[in-house]
Amino acid sequence: MVKSDSFHLETAGQTDILDITDKVSGCVRTSKIAAGLVNISVPGSTAGLTTIEYESGVIEDIKRAFETIAPGNIEYRHDLRWGDGNGYSHVRAALLGPSLSLPISGGKIILGRWQQIVLIDFDNRPRKREIIVQMVGD
Amino acid sequence: MVKSDSFHLETAGQTDILDITDKVSGCVRTSKIAAGLVNISVPGSTAGLTTIEYESGVIEDIKRAFETIAPGNIEYRHDLRWGDGNGYSHVRAALLGPSLSLPISGGKIILGRWQQIVLIDFDNRPRKREIIVQMVGD
Amino acid sequence: MVKSDSFHLETAGQTDILDITDKVSGCVRTSKIAAGLVNISVPGSTAGLTTIEYESGVIEDIKRAFETIAPGNIEYRHDLRWGDGNGYSHVRAALLGPSLSLPISGGKIILGRWQQIVLIDFDNRPRKREIIVQMVGD
Repeated sequence: MVKSDSFHLETAGQTDILDITDKVSGCVRTSKIAAGLVNISVPGSTAGLTTIEYESGVIEDIKRAFETIAPGNIEYRHDLRWGDGNGYSHVRAALLGPSLSLPISGGKIILGRWQQIVLIDFDNRPRKREIIVQMVGD
Repeated sequence: MVKSDSFHLETAGQTDILDITDKVSGCVRTSKIAAGLVNISVPGSTAGLTTIEYESGVIEDIKRAFETIAPGNIEYRHDLRWGDGNGYSHVRAALLGPSLSLPISGGKIILGRWQQIVLIDFDNRPRKREIIVQMVGD
Repeated sequence: MVKSDSFHLETAGQTDILDITDKVSGCVRTSKIAAGLVNISVPGSTAGLTTIEYESGVIEDIKRAFETIAPGNIEYRHDLRWGDGNGYSHVRAALLGPSLSLPISGGKIILGRWQQIVLIDFDNRPRKREIIVQMVGD
């Protein structure tokens, strides 16, 4: 059984980190899939997905880490060529990856107690994003 | 067909890197799934999964790389707020990701000859971890 | 329904970044799966997969980012032990990950308009790679 769902959300860009756990869990609940996999993905090349403990300390720490890995204030070939100013966003998103798959058991996503699913929008401006939630199972 | 399995293991924390290939392969064998996908995941926000050539050189090189990306000896907001001392663990785990999906063919996981599935436990203390092995296929 | 496909390609190594979107899309089309998941993976421990906007600027920016994260000109334990000279390749591949799962809807992979699936071959020499394309769905 395959169930497809999606939702939209507005981000502030600039490595904005948003907790989407409740929305994804709602998709899983609606799907009535008891056991299987949920794949969450974000179309585009300047955003990514992972899981974190969603609290302000970790959020700031992750922003700083990405600033170290792909600084916002150095020169990028993408920007020299296209003038978008979001070369760093592309690099960060490629490293994090555009999708995440997690197990469903008992009709719920299996996560740790302090583990949330997050969208990270690396773009250099506010964006409207669509999150695709694809579920496969019984 | 969906098959769910899991196993526990004890880690030393401190970016401990453990080869879980045999245990995951055992789950796939038991499932009798001949073709499909296996998703391996670790609940929690201070551990992650990937594949490596599991030999002592690569293991040390990866530990050093994570020490460069998110050093253990700098200040983290998470630690200032909660006093856990594992702010670096959260950052490393978020970057690596909590799950991994691989193809099953002929009843086996498709991997390279020198490629093993590893759990990396970034927490700053020994942990007991549960690994969830979710299989979908025929 | 599970469908398995694969294709080969030659890389130049040295963090060569290749657009494999058309080949993967061809596998999805041939499978006749209308809705589900596609998992793309590369056997081996010195290559990985992600998505990017495939243009020369981003390609160069990503190569530089990996050179910063795991420089090619520092000492690696893997090389001291085995003399392969590709210690940095192992580290980069472990961080990026060996597989990628994306949703299929309407018989097509859901991607952004400027988002391509890429293989990154981090090895220090040209390689022939096999890409496994595993599809699950209806």
